[in-house]
Amino acid sequence: MIYFNNDYSEGCHQKVLEALIRTNMEQTLGYGEDEYCAAAAAKIKTLCGREDAAVHFLVGGTQANLTVIDAALRPHQGALCPVGGHINVHETGAVEATGHKVLTVPSDDGKITAEQVRSVVMAHRADSSFEHMVQPKLVYISNPTEYGTLYSLSELTALSETCHELGLYLFLDGARLGYGLMAAGYDVTMQDIARLCDVFYIGGTKVGALFGEAVVITNSVLKEDFRYLIKQHGGMLAKGRLLGVQFDALMTDNLYFDIALHAVHLADKIRETCEELGVSYLVPGITNQIFPIFSDDVLAELSKDFCFTEMERVSPTHRAIRFCTSWATTQENVDALCDALKNLVK
Amino acid sequence: MIYFNNDYSEGCHQKVLEALIRTNMEQTLGYGEDEYCAAAAAKIKTLCGREDAAVHFLVGGTQANLTVIDAALRPHQGALCPVGGHINVHETGAVEATGHKVLTVPSDDGKITAEQVRSVVMAHRADSSFEHMVQPKLVYISNPTEYGTLYSLSELTALSETCHELGLYLFLDGARLGYGLMAAGYDVTMQDIARLCDVFYIGGTKVGALFGEAVVITNSVLKEDFRYLIKQHGGMLAKGRLLGVQFDALMTDNLYFDIALHAVHLADKIRETCEELGVSYLVPGITNQIFPIFSDDVLAELSKDFCFTEMERVSPTHRAIRFCTSWATTQENVDALCDALKNLVK
Amino acid sequence: MIYFNNDYSEGCHQKVLEALIRTNMEQTLGYGEDEYCAAAAAKIKTLCGREDAAVHFLVGGTQANLTVIDAALRPHQGALCPVGGHINVHETGAVEATGHKVLTVPSDDGKITAEQVRSVVMAHRADSSFEHMVQPKLVYISNPTEYGTLYSLSELTALSETCHELGLYLFLDGARLGYGLMAAGYDVTMQDIARLCDVFYIGGTKVGALFGEAVVITNSVLKEDFRYLIKQHGGMLAKGRLLGVQFDALMTDNLYFDIALHAVHLADKIRETCEELGVSYLVPGITNQIFPIFSDDVLAELSKDFCFTEMERVSPTHRAIRFCTSWATTQENVDALCDALKNLVK
Amino acid sequence: MIYFNNDYSEGCHQKVLEALIRTNMEQTLGYGEDEYCAAAAAKIKTLCGREDAAVHFLVGGTQANLTVIDAALRPHQGALCPVGGHINVHETGAVEATGHKVLTVPSDDGKITAEQVRSVVMAHRADSSFEHMVQPKLVYISNPTEYGTLYSLSELTALSETCHELGLYLFLDGARLGYGLMAAGYDVTMQDIARLCDVFYIGGTKVGALFGEAVVITNSVLKEDFRYLIKQHGGMLAKGRLLGVQFDALMTDNLYFDIALHAVHLADKIRETCEELGVSYLVPGITNQIFPIFSDDVLAELSKDFCFTEMERVSPTHRAIRFCTSWATTQENVDALCDALKNLVK
Repeated sequence: MIYFNNDYSEGCHQKVLEALIRTNMEQTLGYGEDEYCAAAAAKIKTLCGREDAAVHFLVGGTQANLTVIDAALRPHQGALCPVGGHINVHETGAVEATGHKVLTVPSDDGKITAEQVRSVVMAHRADSSFEHMVQPKLVYISNPTEYGTLYSLSELTALSETCHELGLYLFLDGARLGYGLMAAGYDVTMQDIARLCDVFYIGGTKVGALFGEAVVITNSVLKEDFRYLIKQHGGMLAKGRLLGVQFDALMTDNLYFDIALHAVHLADKIRETCEELGVSYLVPGITNQIFPIFSDDVLAELSKDFCFTEMERVSPTHRAIRFCTSWATTQENVDALCDALKNLVK
Repeated sequence: MIYFNNDYSEGCHQKVLEALIRTNMEQTLGYGEDEYCAAAAAKIKTLCGREDAAVHFLVGGTQANLTVIDAALRPHQGALCPVGGHINVHETGAVEATGHKVLTVPSDDGKITAEQVRSVVMAHRADSSFEHMVQPKLVYISNPTEYGTLYSLSELTALSETCHELGLYLFLDGARLGYGLMAAGYDVTMQDIARLCDVFYIGGTKVGALFGEAVVITNSVLKEDFRYLIKQHGGMLAKGRLLGVQFDALMTDNLYFDIALHAVHLADKIRETCEELGVSYLVPGITNQIFPIFSDDVLAELSKDFCFTEMERVSPTHRAIRFCTSWATTQENVDALCDALKNLVK
Repeated sequence: MIYFNNDYSEGCHQKVLEALIRTNMEQTLGYGEDEYCAAAAAKIKTLCGREDAAVHFLVGGTQANLTVIDAALRPHQGALCPVGGHINVHETGAVEATGHKVLTVPSDDGKITAEQVRSVVMAHRADSSFEHMVQPKLVYISNPTEYGTLYSLSELTALSETCHELGLYLFLDGARLGYGLMAAGYDVTMQDIARLCDVFYIGGTKVGALFGEAVVITNSVLKEDFRYLIKQHGGMLAKGRLLGVQFDALMTDNLYFDIALHAVHLADKIRETCEELGVSYLVPGITNQIFPIFSDDVLAELSKDFCFTEMERVSPTHRAIRFCTSWATTQENVDALCDALKNLVK
Repeated sequence: MIYFNNDYSEGCHQKVLEALIRTNMEQTLGYGEDEYCAAAAAKIKTLCGREDAAVHFLVGGTQANLTVIDAALRPHQGALCPVGGHINVHETGAVEATGHKVLTVPSDDGKITAEQVRSVVMAHRADSSFEHMVQPKLVYISNPTEYGTLYSLSELTALSETCHELGLYLFLDGARLGYGLMAAGYDVTMQDIARLCDVFYIGGTKVGALFGEAVVITNSVLKEDFRYLIKQHGGMLAKGRLLGVQFDALMTDNLYFDIALHAVHLADKIRETCEELGVSYLVPGITNQIFPIFSDDVLAELSKDFCFTEMERVSPTHRAIRFCTSWATTQENVDALCDALKNLVK
């Protein structure tokens, strides 16, 4: 069985593992106050072009999302997001468990537009019962989204400008950020993100680390007392240096970006095959995620040798699925998949 | 200015006021443990045909909703409701503030169907990531709904059977329950509601009381320690007898139902006029709420003498509004409204 | 049976009742946006010498406490209070239910000192694990306290200065404020309280109203969006004018203070008798609450005709109890109590 | 500088690291549904003599504490613990952030007695205002405690029997469980703990793992839907197998216990030296933690070469500190410490 079902099936990249092995018996301070965390944070600030940023390392994405949102909002405020946003559908109500409503807008491709944000906020403010409704205060986006789509520089700029004009925070979930930044022709850089967002995170779990997300806070209001929030939500690792060591390795010699590019290149190969075969997509994309549509018959055969994610039925005879590549995917496995597709799809 | 904008513009019915005056200087136990609360609860149980029910008096609707839902759910569970449900849109995230997600289903008329409930629950259970999503555990309905619609006996029975088959609680918000039960031709009784719902409340604020809702719990699981929850959420009135005195008066000599019938009759008069004039409705109804559609010109004139609620624009030239009658509405004011409509609408 | 067990056994003062009767059938806007609320708020601001204050009317004390504290704190912050503070012991964890820890300091008389506040805050800041502990951010005091004691002007000034020097809010629970301000020789005025506290409330439930507390916010940071918080916590009464009407009546012609003085005078009579009889106190006081210590034999006899509150056993043969007078207490009942005490205590 | 300040300064034991290296590129299911988690859970169940237990792997102690307590309690219920309990003082209000009050009892040695539990619960039930106070429902203990003390088998049995008689859950925080179980002469076994507690955890972070705690639930009520709670609180690691792999290694060939014994033996050496030197203790103990009292002069010298934890000042001239040994402590460093003590203490 060859796995294309997600991008977190393996452990970590060899260089990350080597860093963990090398530092294993060193003694450091606990709770993220060690030198490895400091070094990794420094590299990330430089990479972002934001020496004024605060960088914190958290264990996982749900934890990062709930901690950032709880830190940012007062009790009557909510997080606005596309209806398919991870915080809305796949985190067991983690945001609500901190007391905050997730306010959704319709979206087919996993993205929210500046116009939607403006429309919701203005409608809220114009309503005579505005105090009877949750106040939108933060916009949550993921980039790449859960559908593998990406915000263009102009879209992200418009979102940022709209949020800031209206007094909202812009929070970007970058669980797969590397796979977005390395996508062919993508016009957004890490510096753009650090310039346009109030807070975001650089995902490690899906991009070469055993686990860990680097939260980057650029808005000084959001920096205050953030470590208290991490601790309160159970996210402060005693051996915080584990995260520092990993991100330090990922941010050394361009490793994070090189391994993300590897995954995107392999996804491009699969896309080439799909296009040759005339396969259509649930949502088109350029990152490490591919959402092709196949007939039930093809999928029945394909599933004998390959593992993939079921997305949804699109017709009585066809279903959309997801293939994921990652830093760990091999050329050999991609070739096997492409060959199988060529054999199965007429 | 004549007010048809809501059903809580005045104080309370004269007989309720007299009861408050008569008992004002009596000394009673606090926190709802007095004889008036006991007497009112006894009358409500008899009325419901449920001597086994627990009856608690709370100050208002949002408080009743958040207290019942928080008492019923474990942290990972959510309340399912129609997208327009009061808990979803007009309570400033009160349910989320207790940690629970409100799960919505699409609805044009303010109602949710048994099929929708089944579909959401089965989809949740069938999903391989079910633990990553909030577990639906309670269905919240309002009856009448925010759109003045009513669940028929067969609809309510189907909802109840589906909830119980699937292990969910059925909770009915009866803020305007009297106006529903007294609607011409409505086939549901108080006993039906007490038989079919796990918990519901009989609204007093909008039906003759100064304030107060009588929460009736029929499911024994939900009864346990409910008073702790009331206290914790700030809903335990020191002079709890104020609620007992009011509901005792409302439940004496059929007062609650007589005054609700009065409101419905007056609403029927307005509906007759609308129908004579060929006015269409946003949503048709038979309770104390009417949602007619008028041209902007008519509304401009009408608003000079009458106060009503804006609902939504339905065309470039027409808007839907709401008229509410109540126990306090006078025949004279209804006649004035009907005359005005006849003059304005051609 | 004559009741001295608490100060909320009756309804409301006759003049408050008359105001409710007089306005009963008037139509007003809902949710506290009516003219009565505006008028009452204006009178309170003038009384406080703080035209810049925000005044909100809430239904009860627990609701006021939880709403103010939740509005004031970020998630990692806590409320500091004396160990016997109402929020710590008698509100079913209402503050914790909003996510905040109540941090306590030892206290025999229900009060906290400026030195205690400074000591806790400085210890927190000096601790190398400060982020692993809740950050003290608000000091909750009640005045009079649960033990009937009062903060002197110098004590209150010291608390206020310490809080503000250290960046904490000072919140005063004035559920029995009238009975404190009218105590013989008390050197604190309403203006002092409004000058020294960031937020406080003037209790109505125990001082002449059916129910209701007037929250006065003087710190502009705490004013922002406060009505959202009221709504979210179920404290926004549809017929908000009920609170406005009552406080408007209480704040007219010095009523609030006259009726509080009445209660204190009658308590003074009981204290005179106790002192003649050589009775000792659990805690001495000058407000409407008296905490005398009697033998079990005396209490057994006394309880045949009088209702009082048990406080605690102070020796194998003696117990401390509480007598409360109120705006509703009669001279006749006080005379009966004093006569009984003279007969029973040798 | 030689570190005796805590037991989480290094990475993980060599055999744990080898297991992580060996499995690094394997593909497994995510979220703890892999074979390594299953294998580790099976070993733990056998070790506990409870094949019916549910075993879950969480990242850290605060996360384990807040997740277990939130899963176990209804909103009005609280966790009872000794005043020095970790959940009360060093988790930034994590339990309160889930809405629950921590109810404390006085304790000098970090332990709570069965009598204290009974006394608090009976007092709560006997109080006429019981619904105005948080209901005690769970007893939280740590074993070893924060003061290095241990519950004897008779103490633990009494606690368990009292909890179960009164309807409370007994929850044991075993962050340092290995170091307790291996202490010389300790009469409690893992099977005893699994028999007497409703839920407990076996700490990995401080006993040989990079991170991770194994939560063992023996009470079937507490098992229900526990994984939802893990996910909601951000504790469900995408690569859950990292925890399974580590605990599988620790539970193989008695590793967990052997390395804990190593730490205890080295602590015994330090204790022997202290006793030879007539050093007194803040609290005596037999685990990997030692709380000796030294003069300020000795500590000033000692701190030049050794890192330890400050506990508290016990006199104008003396302070109590903590030395911790761990699985990673070397004989050589312990010898250096003992030599230094012998030189410094006269």
